[in-house]
Amino acid sequence: MENFVFQNKTKIIFGRDTENQVGEEVKAYSSKVLLHYGTASIKKSGLYERVVASLKKSGVEFVELSGVQPNPRLSLVKEGIDLCRKNGIRFILAVGGGSVIDSAKAIAVGVPYNGDVWDFYIGKAKPEEALPVATVLTIPAAGSESSPSSVITNTDGDLKRGLTNDLLCPAFSILNPELTFTLPDYQTACGAADIMAHIMERYFTTTEHADFTDRLCEAAMKTIVINIPKCLKEPKNYEARAEVMWAGTVAHNDILGTGRNEDWASHQIEHEISGIYDVAHGAGLSVVFPAWMKYVYKTNIPRFVQFASRVWNLEIDFQHPEKTALEGIAALEFFFSEIGLPITLKEMSIETDRFEEMADKCTGGGKYAIGGFTKLDKNAVLEILKLAR
Amino acid sequence: MENFVFQNKTKIIFGRDTENQVGEEVKAYSSKVLLHYGTASIKKSGLYERVVASLKKSGVEFVELSGVQPNPRLSLVKEGIDLCRKNGIRFILAVGGGSVIDSAKAIAVGVPYNGDVWDFYIGKAKPEEALPVATVLTIPAAGSESSPSSVITNTDGDLKRGLTNDLLCPAFSILNPELTFTLPDYQTACGAADIMAHIMERYFTTTEHADFTDRLCEAAMKTIVINIPKCLKEPKNYEARAEVMWAGTVAHNDILGTGRNEDWASHQIEHEISGIYDVAHGAGLSVVFPAWMKYVYKTNIPRFVQFASRVWNLEIDFQHPEKTALEGIAALEFFFSEIGLPITLKEMSIETDRFEEMADKCTGGGKYAIGGFTKLDKNAVLEILKLAR
Repeated sequence: MENFVFQNKTKIIFGRDTENQVGEEVKAYSSKVLLHYGTASIKKSGLYERVVASLKKSGVEFVELSGVQPNPRLSLVKEGIDLCRKNGIRFILAVGGGSVIDSAKAIAVGVPYNGDVWDFYIGKAKPEEALPVATVLTIPAAGSESSPSSVITNTDGDLKRGLTNDLLCPAFSILNPELTFTLPDYQTACGAADIMAHIMERYFTTTEHADFTDRLCEAAMKTIVINIPKCLKEPKNYEARAEVMWAGTVAHNDILGTGRNEDWASHQIEHEISGIYDVAHGAGLSVVFPAWMKYVYKTNIPRFVQFASRVWNLEIDFQHPEKTALEGIAALEFFFSEIGLPITLKEMSIETDRFEEMADKCTGGGKYAIGGFTKLDKNAVLEILKLAR
Repeated sequence: MENFVFQNKTKIIFGRDTENQVGEEVKAYSSKVLLHYGTASIKKSGLYERVVASLKKSGVEFVELSGVQPNPRLSLVKEGIDLCRKNGIRFILAVGGGSVIDSAKAIAVGVPYNGDVWDFYIGKAKPEEALPVATVLTIPAAGSESSPSSVITNTDGDLKRGLTNDLLCPAFSILNPELTFTLPDYQTACGAADIMAHIMERYFTTTEHADFTDRLCEAAMKTIVINIPKCLKEPKNYEARAEVMWAGTVAHNDILGTGRNEDWASHQIEHEISGIYDVAHGAGLSVVFPAWMKYVYKTNIPRFVQFASRVWNLEIDFQHPEKTALEGIAALEFFFSEIGLPITLKEMSIETDRFEEMADKCTGGGKYAIGGFTKLDKNAVLEILKLAR
């Protein structure tokens, strides 16, 4: 086990009707907030009205900024920063999924900064201050509701880049599984891929002894694998939705990564794909992860056997462990496919013509390698993209 | 799944040599602390010197209060409160195991309070303020290093009582598994029983749907069951010690209890035993828990079958699930016995003569029932004590 520091301060308020507590919780921080959300869906579901009623009841004023898209845009973040500055707002309330929350975090870190907020995302500057952010989560997927991360897309250059800093951990997050009843199947499935990916990025490690966190990761993966089909079959199954929602948060609050090195190459490759093609992050991951596995599994067959056995309950072929390893990868691919996700780039109408560009971008023009489990240079990334065709 | 609120702010600093960071970490809070510890063992191991060197290096002054015993005493707590007040101390650093940490927490909550600190432990008053506490942990067991709980013994009346309040969550805790290399086998084993009990108190629930947290509990229990024998065989096995130490903390940081009701009857019964007989808490639990299980298992056989199957890898007898349930209980008893713990009161030289008194005390003179999994009245507690003979 490797040395580590772990702390996650986000207060989780979980369960039925909890969105009605939002005003009271916000009030403890501020009496004026930026209410940040995406499209009309929170109005259609009635969530918008409930949140607004709760804010009003607690005497919290708000200024609205809607229009967050999947793969949230830097341009809207800048609008939000201006809006907060103009209105003297010191608290951001994000109502939505990972994109809304990531956008809110970018605004939060941008308001007190004199330079261009994009500096933080390209590593040109390090944030020293951020407004507090809180969330009412509507999509279990990104884990942003208790993570210190934010991913933003700069359409100028098709760049999707992430920032991780403890300042970005939300003050509190409200998680009501009922809010996910109306999610389209495809979004439920994309969320599942994102959650699985967050766990797998941590699970595939070169740290040799990480028994406890291995088991925690396996617990979370099994929870997703068992409960997502239930959510798709019965969208209003509270218990299944609740399991997914809580597992999705824990998947990315970093307890599963304690004491072990992590990989994150699949995420980096996927960011290049959705940065250019604007596909759903989860769908990009369901394509990239199995391809990544096929490329790297030989470097640590026992770990892939463990994955096959403990997550997918597959019988181990002790004489031919490689077969079991491949069966585990096939099981993941089958799962993604069964829940309606693409497992090839072709299914997302992505051709091979920009492979070179993507491999180039995510390795800094071939200058560095990515991934903690196996180091991947530009050529390796190209090979993985080919396996994902 | 039940509605819940979860937040745990304790910063965990985990790994080799981390005790040398204590001065720097403390410095962020205070330049004068109460250094609270138990007996000579931290001096023998050299830990005392390293902690003192780190404090001095960071320019942190300290006043010492040693002498914490297992089942920490109210009398010493009161001494600590006086000492802090006299010296204007606003920060407590606990170096030791659960008893030292619990004692530190009691001091922390007592200093700003005008009345008798025992009021908090008997529910006569509710704390509104506490000094920050930090810990350097030497025994993986109590989980007090990141829990909001403290258990104190008042020898006036042989009363052992607990207080739970978020104010008691340590600001930070330093966990170096190397510090546990020199633990006597019996203490390692007692710690294992305590950790298992913290998980089992949460695992045995009447909440029907708690799939994810069930699996997290099982992950933690398996980690203990697999790694404790390794620690006993090779006391300096860093990896095994690390697994136990981290699982021991997570076992009681309350993430395993999210969304489910919990039991805690075994703990309450054990507190009456160690309140009178001053036995190690872990040893008391290794006696009480199997007896509790034998008394209650019929109320939910499927849950005990799950315990047998998932934690102990026992084959399920589908025609006779009760047999499997009993095998699971026997497996736990066998485990405790194998690692050197008592599984009967007799082994701790405790006779039947004060059973009535203990059953009386832990049910408020028969006025209320205890336990969330099965409600136990005074008679039920008596029956469990008899099963534990």
